[in-house]
Amino acid sequence: MFAIAPANERPLLSREQERLVVGKAAWVFAMARSGQRVCPTICITREAWEAVKSAKPGSPLHTNWVAALFKLVPKGEEPPQLVVRTAAQTHMAGLARVRGKVDAPKRESDAADTSKPLGRAIDRAFESYLHGTPVWTIDTGRDLSLEQIVLVQAATEQKPFSILTRSTSTGELGPFKLQGQPELPQLANPVAAKQLCRKMDALSGAHMVCLVAEDKGELVFLSARPVQANISANLEAAIDRVSNGDWTPRKAVSEIDPAQLPQILHPRLTGKKRGTPLSNGLGVSPGAASGAIVFSSEDASRYRARGKDCILVSVETGPSDIEGMQAAAGILTARGGITSHAAVIARVTGKPCVAGVRTMSIDPDHTKVRLGEREFLAGAEITIDGGTGEVYAGALPLSQPKIGGALGTLLDWADGSRTIEVRTNVETEESARIALSFGAEGIGLARSEHMFFSTERMVALRRMIFSQNDRDRKQALDGLVEYQADDYARLFSTMEGLPITVRLFDPPLHEFLPRSEEELEDAAASLGLETERLRNRLERMAEVNPMLGHRGCRLAISHPEILDMQIRALIAGARAAIDAHDIQVNLEIMVPFVSSAREVNWVRTKILQLMERLGVNQTESFKFSIGTMIELPRAALRAYDIAKHVDFFSFGTNDLTQTTFGISRDDAPAFLATYQRRGLYDADPFVTIDKKGVGELIKIAIQRGKEANPDLKIGICGEHAGDPESLRFFAGLNVDYVSCSPYRLPIARLALAQSQN
Amino acid sequence: MFAIAPANERPLLSREQERLVVGKAAWVFAMARSGQRVCPTICITREAWEAVKSAKPGSPLHTNWVAALFKLVPKGEEPPQLVVRTAAQTHMAGLARVRGKVDAPKRESDAADTSKPLGRAIDRAFESYLHGTPVWTIDTGRDLSLEQIVLVQAATEQKPFSILTRSTSTGELGPFKLQGQPELPQLANPVAAKQLCRKMDALSGAHMVCLVAEDKGELVFLSARPVQANISANLEAAIDRVSNGDWTPRKAVSEIDPAQLPQILHPRLTGKKRGTPLSNGLGVSPGAASGAIVFSSEDASRYRARGKDCILVSVETGPSDIEGMQAAAGILTARGGITSHAAVIARVTGKPCVAGVRTMSIDPDHTKVRLGEREFLAGAEITIDGGTGEVYAGALPLSQPKIGGALGTLLDWADGSRTIEVRTNVETEESARIALSFGAEGIGLARSEHMFFSTERMVALRRMIFSQNDRDRKQALDGLVEYQADDYARLFSTMEGLPITVRLFDPPLHEFLPRSEEELEDAAASLGLETERLRNRLERMAEVNPMLGHRGCRLAISHPEILDMQIRALIAGARAAIDAHDIQVNLEIMVPFVSSAREVNWVRTKILQLMERLGVNQTESFKFSIGTMIELPRAALRAYDIAKHVDFFSFGTNDLTQTTFGISRDDAPAFLATYQRRGLYDADPFVTIDKKGVGELIKIAIQRGKEANPDLKIGICGEHAGDPESLRFFAGLNVDYVSCSPYRLPIARLALAQSQN
Repeated sequence: MFAIAPANERPLLSREQERLVVGKAAWVFAMARSGQRVCPTICITREAWEAVKSAKPGSPLHTNWVAALFKLVPKGEEPPQLVVRTAAQTHMAGLARVRGKVDAPKRESDAADTSKPLGRAIDRAFESYLHGTPVWTIDTGRDLSLEQIVLVQAATEQKPFSILTRSTSTGELGPFKLQGQPELPQLANPVAAKQLCRKMDALSGAHMVCLVAEDKGELVFLSARPVQANISANLEAAIDRVSNGDWTPRKAVSEIDPAQLPQILHPRLTGKKRGTPLSNGLGVSPGAASGAIVFSSEDASRYRARGKDCILVSVETGPSDIEGMQAAAGILTARGGITSHAAVIARVTGKPCVAGVRTMSIDPDHTKVRLGEREFLAGAEITIDGGTGEVYAGALPLSQPKIGGALGTLLDWADGSRTIEVRTNVETEESARIALSFGAEGIGLARSEHMFFSTERMVALRRMIFSQNDRDRKQALDGLVEYQADDYARLFSTMEGLPITVRLFDPPLHEFLPRSEEELEDAAASLGLETERLRNRLERMAEVNPMLGHRGCRLAISHPEILDMQIRALIAGARAAIDAHDIQVNLEIMVPFVSSAREVNWVRTKILQLMERLGVNQTESFKFSIGTMIELPRAALRAYDIAKHVDFFSFGTNDLTQTTFGISRDDAPAFLATYQRRGLYDADPFVTIDKKGVGELIKIAIQRGKEANPDLKIGICGEHAGDPESLRFFAGLNVDYVSCSPYRLPIARLALAQSQN
Repeated sequence: MFAIAPANERPLLSREQERLVVGKAAWVFAMARSGQRVCPTICITREAWEAVKSAKPGSPLHTNWVAALFKLVPKGEEPPQLVVRTAAQTHMAGLARVRGKVDAPKRESDAADTSKPLGRAIDRAFESYLHGTPVWTIDTGRDLSLEQIVLVQAATEQKPFSILTRSTSTGELGPFKLQGQPELPQLANPVAAKQLCRKMDALSGAHMVCLVAEDKGELVFLSARPVQANISANLEAAIDRVSNGDWTPRKAVSEIDPAQLPQILHPRLTGKKRGTPLSNGLGVSPGAASGAIVFSSEDASRYRARGKDCILVSVETGPSDIEGMQAAAGILTARGGITSHAAVIARVTGKPCVAGVRTMSIDPDHTKVRLGEREFLAGAEITIDGGTGEVYAGALPLSQPKIGGALGTLLDWADGSRTIEVRTNVETEESARIALSFGAEGIGLARSEHMFFSTERMVALRRMIFSQNDRDRKQALDGLVEYQADDYARLFSTMEGLPITVRLFDPPLHEFLPRSEEELEDAAASLGLETERLRNRLERMAEVNPMLGHRGCRLAISHPEILDMQIRALIAGARAAIDAHDIQVNLEIMVPFVSSAREVNWVRTKILQLMERLGVNQTESFKFSIGTMIELPRAALRAYDIAKHVDFFSFGTNDLTQTTFGISRDDAPAFLATYQRRGLYDADPFVTIDKKGVGELIKIAIQRGKEANPDLKIGICGEHAGDPESLRFFAGLNVDYVSCSPYRLPIARLALAQSQN
């Protein structure tokens, strides 16, 4: 097949030709059809070129080819010199560069002769496809060789230049110059250039680079290709296209890639005056963070307990640093790259991380760190940028991401075609406010154990665990109820009647016990126990595999006093919030780590007994329900029986992934890099839900659960609820809500809207 | 309903009466029908008694009752005194004791009058059912009140006495006296007693206690109840019943409870001269063991590495002692009972364990232990009996269980109706020989990592892990190949062509690295590394959840040199065995801890490449296949894809249970006791397979696997393959083989035969 966009007429293509004219070629024909003056162009496929070459001069095919070449010549002019380009649908590296200024064939018989300049140039262009490698492809089974096309164009008088249809940083309509290219020439007709950009933008709905030339004051279009823009530019462009009528809001919602949103949803360094970075490493987990330097997990936990930010600084991290990484605001390592332990854990937990800082060295006694030219003691403040890999001295001002402007408009449109609720995983009043500003429609996961992350509460909790007599124990429990009731009251008030899922205490108790020798001695003293005796008790409580240990509902069952304390705190908190603010409280109590119906029924019965003892009833202002987290394979399989005892299921996809695969997320980095290199996983299963395995369990559980209890509410909590691909999968399961971290709410709103569009 | 076994005739019962005459009553009627003289007996149900009581004297029912009472009187004699007994199907505690010598009613109208002696006695007997508690019941939904029966018998002249139909220790046919009862009286007709025993035995097929009385030189049968016998007695009795024609061999196979077999399948103390035990505790895991006293996991591992037996002695055990418990021959603790950590782990791993020895105290510096009156230093030898809870000084002689005699005969019969193969989990030549003597038809699980449990091999393995250069590494690997090749050659020769499944290296590498400071320094010295550097490397290799860590096929994939070494060793071993002994080798290589088809395909491809490089082909004398262990929920779900790449599946039910439930077996004892107390689990899921959860995954995997690959062979390895209830479940899944520890082979042979009967 070959097709012609002639010098003087609008092109007319058959359906077959339309199908085969792809890549750059498509834009030439589309612009020509829209009335834009284009450079006369022939587009020819590999198959057609082979046929033309073997056709005898004088044969109909050969004659057609000659006629096509003639159409490149404006009426009454000399045949121009020619330009030969490649134009594939799929972006390829290694293709022949443009071959400019090829002499047009002198005689008809030279038109397809490969020993003559034109034939040789076309041959070479096709040849280059053989050596090219697709830069990115989605394997659709298409025969890519059919898409190998060569363009033959008349050379322009003036030198062609590139213009950008929209700014790749602001999204404003062009013409703009490309980054790294010289300024645009002085245009004879700037309005025409603007019109060309407008036209191309309407046709493509994308940021494009157009190759154009001026000819007697007029703009001639030669070719175009799409170009990447940042998310802000894409958002502004989308809003602009809607306001000028090119797009519907629905179309705008469908065109923005939610995977791009994280670029603007992390805290960022503000202001231009940052000074010079101390060091440069690899930005392996985006966002900026500042805080005091700590060198150990213990110190990081201590900072967290005091409510202060710190940066965990280490040569490289390993499984023993997990706790510190979770406690720190950011992570900085001297070694490692994008697949290092630090990088993987940081991305999954959403912490900024800079790795592989070669100019950083840590003192062997772990008291100071050298960063480039300067030395810092533990406790000194630094700032890291996990996007750029830069490290700065001091705590630089960070801007918290906000929803507004183009993003706000787009998300409002998105909400119009979304029915699946978006909730958030937060525990504090402050995070709840941020989440509300990001569009949270409830809390899907409040991890109640986070209420104990402060020094005084930790002490009270330890006192409860090690209490020597009933009086001590009761005192400790009452203290804990008081602390928490206050937290809950504030959380409930902030959410004003929106649903709030509080998960009962989940981690093994030993996670709250002292680790280091120093801490142990302090704890023993404050508990009035001999150090040796406390050490022995701690040793007995240690676990080989804490992920599969004495946690979740197992704790509520073996320590009913903890369950009792938690329910009392929730009820006191709800009452305080209702009394003080005249609001509704919509509480959903979630039982974690259930593997059988009997377990959840035991806990539920206990809760209802407590409620009765406390005189609690369902009222207009206080609603409560009891549900369970489905995070173990057995719970998914036994969903029918479990659903009879609960009001809702919330899928804890992190733990469900860990148990279904038999992979500890904390330990996975040791082999995940190898697995990625060898192509053994489609994606990191802790980032994108494994549809075939974990996904099947979720489907089974929903189907069985709804069969037993048609009113069962279904939610998803866990990191996957903030991942676009996973969200598309969840939308297909008809869940009632998803719950993710506050900064991922916009991703969830957009991805769900696209799936439900 | 009431029924009469009269004084002078054989009883005739309607079908309805047959159904209602249960427990002791049934034996009276059965014996009477068989021609044995029985004491005249009326059997009446609660319902009938209520009707009789409210029937007017002279009414047909009342008249019938009177007529029945008359039948207790032999023709022409005076009405005897009466005896009233309870007789329920279900064994109950708290029932009324026999009420003997009740005067017979003087007048017809007194026959059901509850103010008269007989009526009062019958009323009281029924009343006692209300306070009785079933000793054991299987909840079948039956209305137990229907089975409440009272017997009214004529009192015998002579005092009744109990005889045992067969010895409860040898199974020999009686009469014998009951344990703890006075000698049998001098019998007027000893032959009649033997005949009665013979008759009762034929009727019941069980060890019975019969209540009889002598009357003018004749034996009168009053009542009977079954009695527990030990397994040896049951086996001998079964063989005897077959030889005298009462039973078919098939019946004998179906009647022996495989759960009783462990009584004779553990090493036992031999000889009578044991001396006095040092201490007595609770026998919480059966079998006897002797060895040197050790106080720490490190020391236990050291003994194991040297191939010597030790007993781990501890105040109580916890998760940190798991390794030591596995390395020790037996476990002895001062605290804890049947559900303690030590007891649970010991039972699951099949180690003898004595817990709760109150007279034992361990020195705080862990160098000596006091047992009763005596003190022992670490290294001193002791013997424990996990059945009786006794602890002895010195290494007493132990008898290894053997198959022969009655057990041998029964198992031979059992094998006749069994088609599912029984294999064993062993690694050493010695265990393989024992397994063969116990009927192993192959090895279903040889844990290749066990080949490294010796000091010199451990050093070679560490040298490989920490090798500084290729030469070091190659040397270490070659050394490891040599050691293992020799082990494999001996294992293959022992098994002479039977199938042998070798599982590739499974545990995380850090399990083979030093733990204690002392060991660390030794290891550093022997590896030529600085201690500090080795410590750092060890810290990097530590894992948060090793069960879900860098293990199984993940190791083969990230360390292909280990896979290479293992395959080379297997091939060299096979060649040596074939060359030296002219035998066949039937090798099945098993890839562990697979979660996806791609993983197993990667490893399989690597193995086949290695085989090709080594010039290995399938021949008459060397057959090999490649399969995978299904031990992760995802593997079960993805069985269709996985089955395309393998020849067999072997279900690793231990790890599959851990991941399906999200329970670490090592950590479970912390809450399992509470769970048992609160009735949250039907059974310990690590002992009896969880049919509803884990079982469903196994079914799914078999169905999907066979769909993709109809020739797929299916096996079960793991502790459950030695548990009777689990075996019944597996038999229903039509598996090809099960594989258990050698001492559990007879259980598997019998339980499978019963299921396939």
